[in-house]
Amino acid sequence: MQNLRIPGPTPCPPEVLAAMGRQMINHRGSEFAEIIKDVTVKMKHVFQTKNELMLLTGSGTAGLEAAVVNMLSPGDTVLGVAIGVFGERFAKIAQTFGANVIPLNFEHGKAADPALMKEALDANPQIKAVLVTHNETSTGVTNDLAAISKIVKGAGKLLLVDCISSLGSLNVPVDELGIDVAISGSQKGWMVPPGMAMISVSETGWQAYAQAKMPRFYWDLGKAKAGLEKGQTPWTPNVSVVFAFQVALEMMLKEGINNIFTRHARIGKFTREGVKSLGLTLLADEKFASNTVTSVVADRGLDAKKLNKIMKEEFDIVLAGGQGPLEGKIFRIGHLGMVNEKDIQAVFDGLKVALPKAGFVK
Amino acid sequence: MQNLRIPGPTPCPPEVLAAMGRQMINHRGSEFAEIIKDVTVKMKHVFQTKNELMLLTGSGTAGLEAAVVNMLSPGDTVLGVAIGVFGERFAKIAQTFGANVIPLNFEHGKAADPALMKEALDANPQIKAVLVTHNETSTGVTNDLAAISKIVKGAGKLLLVDCISSLGSLNVPVDELGIDVAISGSQKGWMVPPGMAMISVSETGWQAYAQAKMPRFYWDLGKAKAGLEKGQTPWTPNVSVVFAFQVALEMMLKEGINNIFTRHARIGKFTREGVKSLGLTLLADEKFASNTVTSVVADRGLDAKKLNKIMKEEFDIVLAGGQGPLEGKIFRIGHLGMVNEKDIQAVFDGLKVALPKAGFVK
Repeated sequence: MQNLRIPGPTPCPPEVLAAMGRQMINHRGSEFAEIIKDVTVKMKHVFQTKNELMLLTGSGTAGLEAAVVNMLSPGDTVLGVAIGVFGERFAKIAQTFGANVIPLNFEHGKAADPALMKEALDANPQIKAVLVTHNETSTGVTNDLAAISKIVKGAGKLLLVDCISSLGSLNVPVDELGIDVAISGSQKGWMVPPGMAMISVSETGWQAYAQAKMPRFYWDLGKAKAGLEKGQTPWTPNVSVVFAFQVALEMMLKEGINNIFTRHARIGKFTREGVKSLGLTLLADEKFASNTVTSVVADRGLDAKKLNKIMKEEFDIVLAGGQGPLEGKIFRIGHLGMVNEKDIQAVFDGLKVALPKAGFVK
Repeated sequence: MQNLRIPGPTPCPPEVLAAMGRQMINHRGSEFAEIIKDVTVKMKHVFQTKNELMLLTGSGTAGLEAAVVNMLSPGDTVLGVAIGVFGERFAKIAQTFGANVIPLNFEHGKAADPALMKEALDANPQIKAVLVTHNETSTGVTNDLAAISKIVKGAGKLLLVDCISSLGSLNVPVDELGIDVAISGSQKGWMVPPGMAMISVSETGWQAYAQAKMPRFYWDLGKAKAGLEKGQTPWTPNVSVVFAFQVALEMMLKEGINNIFTRHARIGKFTREGVKSLGLTLLADEKFASNTVTSVVADRGLDAKKLNKIMKEEFDIVLAGGQGPLEGKIFRIGHLGMVNEKDIQAVFDGLKVALPKAGFVK
């Protein structure tokens, strides 16, 4: 089997793939209602939330758009915290729909500095909401959500968090952190194929929803909430991914969420240690290095694109490249969802052979 | 196997379900690029179009929203032609995003009258676009697109058509009809699970896109077009449904699109004749009755909800109810995608037993 080591889509367990192959049923019938209710309850457990949690048929980016258009009005001022491509995307969506975005960008590889966020909030009291990425997939950096939440909620602002590549893998206690809108995506730590975004909304979030004036129809979370009360979705959902979620969540709860978090932390460390022992340099500030994806600098003559090509062709190991300004400058190893040390050891074994072929001089 | 006779999701062939169960691959790699290109070429054949055709991760309704936000600006005047729930939804989306919608509603069960459309266009020269449903799933009526197109394109207006439940089952020669934006959904005649909308855009459509000012990000068709040139999608796509499309389209092309259209016409007629011979009344004006879904009036004492319950419990046959104002007033039989006479005969056999139990007096 191919060793798919990109930060999503992630490899799916055979049981989940079998669920993907289930025959269609009526998405407005009682059987599907039971499934969607079961999935929602179990997913709330992983989100560690009592908030409403809704499934949207779309990608992770769709979840970001849904967060924006359901919480904000044109002209609202928001703080757009970005430590990479996905933070910039979140801010760009808000801007596209008419928000006045105050950008707060950090160097790629660094985490957001909560002190600078506090300064920005103090300097701009008109800020209504803060948009921030928990785990920045493009740089492999995890922000300190506890510190961020303390500042944002302390200032009484709405906190919208892109948890797409963290929820289900890293510890994100949504209620404890006071996250008003938390977004994830099926193809990450959940071990399910892409096609659904999941989004939780706090009571404060629903109050913002009631005031928000950005145009929304397909992503209208009020409609999603009303649908869910009948065990339905307002529009035909991605039935197969809901089937897959039911199986994957059962597996996740069996492993136990704390065990999942521990496993990801252990494998994250294992990956970073192994990468460094090969003489490679981590892009991420190690204090904030992500336990779901590791970004590696293409230095000492390394041609990152050539490396990924060799890894694919010679070892059937698929690594990710850099995105945006980091294209060609880094390569990335995904280690979220269904992953163990053996999968990562295979990457190291391949890298040992491939690195010199791709120009790397230790 | 359950006889799923709702107008989508439709039953999928085993080969398609097997494709749904395929392991994930890199959605930015060469293998996926080949698949998405193959799927696009074959789908264009079914759309009978040389226009750009894009896959969007979302439901059919998402495709309607994409059509609206990519073609229009707030304040644009559009004619919203509705012969049922889905036509009303299309108009509602345009209104939500700031269009000035002139509604042109027809009685449920009737087709749109092209002469009245012409009157509306003549009376409102400021109309920029016409929004119309080809096959109205809620009433089982198929509009006369050739006549409609003649009037709309004759008046030089943009023609946006919801072909969600017609494309892939009924003959929709997109280029010949001059459809600027044609939308379909994976879970209809395509024999694929839900989760993707497909949308084609004409040259005139792209000119409108360049002028359109409604906010768009996730649904931005320009980004989708640019992605497709690299064999990608701007956001992580529904990989499994793309796999499924590849298999289903291969089957469709093997059957031949004209044979598919003929089969649907034959089965549509078979369904209507059978329904009438049971003493039931069709909702649809028979001249415009749909060959993908048949709506049946719950008259002569018939409790439609009870009927569907009995059909499900006693025969494992799943029929659809009425939507919106037609809830409880009709039931519907889906006959699109993977369907043959035997499937429909089984419905008749069940109805013979279930109808009297549900209060129907012949």
